[in-house]
Amino acid sequence: MASSLQDTLVTYEELAELELEFDDVETEIIRHQVQLTQPLYEKRHKIVAQIPNFWPLVLEQAPPDIDEYIQPSDSALLLACLTSLSVSHFEIENGAKGDPRSVAIKWEFSENEYFEDRVLEKKFWYRRAEDGWAGLVSEPVDIKWKKDKDLTGGLLSMVKRVWDEDQALEKAGKGGAKAKDKELTPQQKELKKKIEETGLGGLSFFAWFGFRGQRISAEESRLAIEKEQKQRKLRLEGKKVEPSEDDADDDDDDDDELDGLEIFPEGDTLAVTIAEDLWPGAIKYFTQAQEQDALSDLEFESDMELDLEELEEDGDEAPPSKKRKAGGE
Amino acid sequence: MASSLQDTLVTYEELAELELEFDDVETEIIRHQVQLTQPLYEKRHKIVAQIPNFWPLVLEQAPPDIDEYIQPSDSALLLACLTSLSVSHFEIENGAKGDPRSVAIKWEFSENEYFEDRVLEKKFWYRRAEDGWAGLVSEPVDIKWKKDKDLTGGLLSMVKRVWDEDQALEKAGKGGAKAKDKELTPQQKELKKKIEETGLGGLSFFAWFGFRGQRISAEESRLAIEKEQKQRKLRLEGKKVEPSEDDADDDDDDDDELDGLEIFPEGDTLAVTIAEDLWPGAIKYFTQAQEQDALSDLEFESDMELDLEELEEDGDEAPPSKKRKAGGE
Repeated sequence: MASSLQDTLVTYEELAELELEFDDVETEIIRHQVQLTQPLYEKRHKIVAQIPNFWPLVLEQAPPDIDEYIQPSDSALLLACLTSLSVSHFEIENGAKGDPRSVAIKWEFSENEYFEDRVLEKKFWYRRAEDGWAGLVSEPVDIKWKKDKDLTGGLLSMVKRVWDEDQALEKAGKGGAKAKDKELTPQQKELKKKIEETGLGGLSFFAWFGFRGQRISAEESRLAIEKEQKQRKLRLEGKKVEPSEDDADDDDDDDDELDGLEIFPEGDTLAVTIAEDLWPGAIKYFTQAQEQDALSDLEFESDMELDLEELEEDGDEAPPSKKRKAGGE
Repeated sequence: MASSLQDTLVTYEELAELELEFDDVETEIIRHQVQLTQPLYEKRHKIVAQIPNFWPLVLEQAPPDIDEYIQPSDSALLLACLTSLSVSHFEIENGAKGDPRSVAIKWEFSENEYFEDRVLEKKFWYRRAEDGWAGLVSEPVDIKWKKDKDLTGGLLSMVKRVWDEDQALEKAGKGGAKAKDKELTPQQKELKKKIEETGLGGLSFFAWFGFRGQRISAEESRLAIEKEQKQRKLRLEGKKVEPSEDDADDDDDDDDELDGLEIFPEGDTLAVTIAEDLWPGAIKYFTQAQEQDALSDLEFESDMELDLEELEEDGDEAPPSKKRKAGGE
C-alpha cells in the first residue's frame, strides 16, 4: 500500500507531539480513576477478606495472559497460603504528585511450609529514559524460602545477589549495569548460565519477583522528562529543535534480555495485566470460579441483608434467611 | 479447589451490588475521559485529514481482533475510497445525559465504484434488559451497492428487510422478534437459509453493518434501569428485596444467534475493539504502517514547525527545511 506521509505537510514531530498530548490526558484520567475507585477497593477488601480462598480462586480463573505463568506447584502454594492481593498506585497515594502509572502489587500469606515471608510486595516505577523509551522498571524482591522449598530452584536469590552487586558497583562509580562493553562479573556469568539451563518453560510464577527491566534511575527519568518538556515547549512556540533521541531503537529496550540476565522478560507486561485486568475484575473471576466449581450443588447464603455501613465498622453478621442457587453473571 | 462463599457471611447480592457500584464509577470515568480527549481528537482529525490513506493504513495494521474480519476485497475497497473514520459517544454529546458507553462509528468515503453512499454510520446503544443483561445493541445499516459490487452478496440488504418487517410487526402490536415461540416469517426463513449457506468464514467486513444484537428498546432499558435502582436503594436501606432476574441466563443473550438470524454475531465486540483500541491507537498503527512499508527509503518531511494554532485555523503550510528518516515510536 502506498505510503503517504512523505507527500504531505504533516511532520513526524507533529504526530509525536499529539501522541504526547494524548499521553498527558491519559495520565490525568488514570489519576482521576484511582481517586474515584479507591473507596470501592477498600470496601471490596473488607468484604472479600471474609471469603476463604477468595484470591486463590480468582487466580485460578485468571485470563490466559496470567494463567500461562502459573505452574501447578505455584497453584498449590497459592491455595495453601495466599490470603490477600492488592494493587496500589503508590506514587500518588496521600496526595503525592508522582506518576499514576507506577504500581505496587502486594501479596500476603499465612504461615506456610514454603517461605518465611508474610508479605511480598513488588513495585513497578513508570520511568522515561533519555532515548525516549518509557515504561515500567522494577527491582528484584527476594523470598526467604524454607529448606528444599524454593520453587525457583535458587534462581531468584541469584538474581537478587547480582542486583545487589550491581548497585554496589554503581555506588562505587564503576557504572554497574549501565557500563558499555562491560564484562560480565563471575556472578552475572553464573546467573546467565543458570537462566539458559533453566529455560523459560516451566519456570515458577515466583520468578516474576526477580524482574528488573531497564536500568533507569529516578534521576535519569526526571532529567529525561524535563528535557522532553523543554523541547515540546520550544516546538509549540514554533522554534527549531535539535532532533532528540526520541526515536529510540527498539533493540535498546531489552539490553538485559539480550544479556541473558533477565529472569522474567515479560514481568512488566504481567504486572500491567494483574493491575488492569485481574485486580479490577476480581469479583467477576471469583464468580466464574464459583460457577465452575459447583454448578450443581453449591448454594449461597443469600439475602442476608448485611448493612454495608455496619459491615464497614466491624464485619457484623446477620443470620442467613434463605438460600439461592449461584446465578450467572 | 474448595469453593467458599457458602461458608461465609458474604452474599451473592452483596458482591453484585459492589460490582454495580464499580460500574457506576467506571461510567463516570468514561464520561470524564470523553470530555478530556474530545479536543485532542478534533485536533487529530484536522492533522490526519491531510495525510492520504491515513485510515486505510491504520486498518492495515489493525490488531488481529479486527484484522480477522477484513477480507482482501474489503481491503481493496477501503484503500480505494475510505477517507475518514470517527468514533463518537453520541449519547453524551453537547452536554446530553445519556450513557457514555453508547458509541457511533462513522465511515466516510469518496466517490467510488462500489456503492452510492458517502457516509455509513453505525450506532450502538448501551442498554439494559429486564433480565439483568447489559451491553450494546444496534440496528442494521443498509448500503446502496452498485450493480454486481455487493461484497455481502445481498446478505446485508436481506437483513435490513427482515429488520424493517420486524419493526412493522412490532408497531402493529404483533410482537415482532420478541414474540415467544414465534414462527419465522418467510423472509426470516430465507435469511436464515442464506446465512447458513454463506457461513461466517470469508464473510465481508461490511456484513458488520447488519449487526443487530439483542432486541431491547430504549423504553425497556429505561424501565430495567429504574427497577434495578429501586432494588439497590432498598437493599442499601437493609430492606428485603425479592430476588430479581439479575442472574440472566447467558443462553438468553444470543437469541438471534440461536435463531440463526444474526449476520455478524461478534458485531458488538468488534465495535468495542474499534472504539477502544483502533480509534485511540490510530497514530501508533499509522506509524507502524509507515515503518513496515518503507523501512529503507521513506523519508518524512520534517522539522517544518507548523504552528499548531495556525494549523487549526486553516492548515497553512511552511516549507520543509530538512528531512529525516522515519524513526521508531
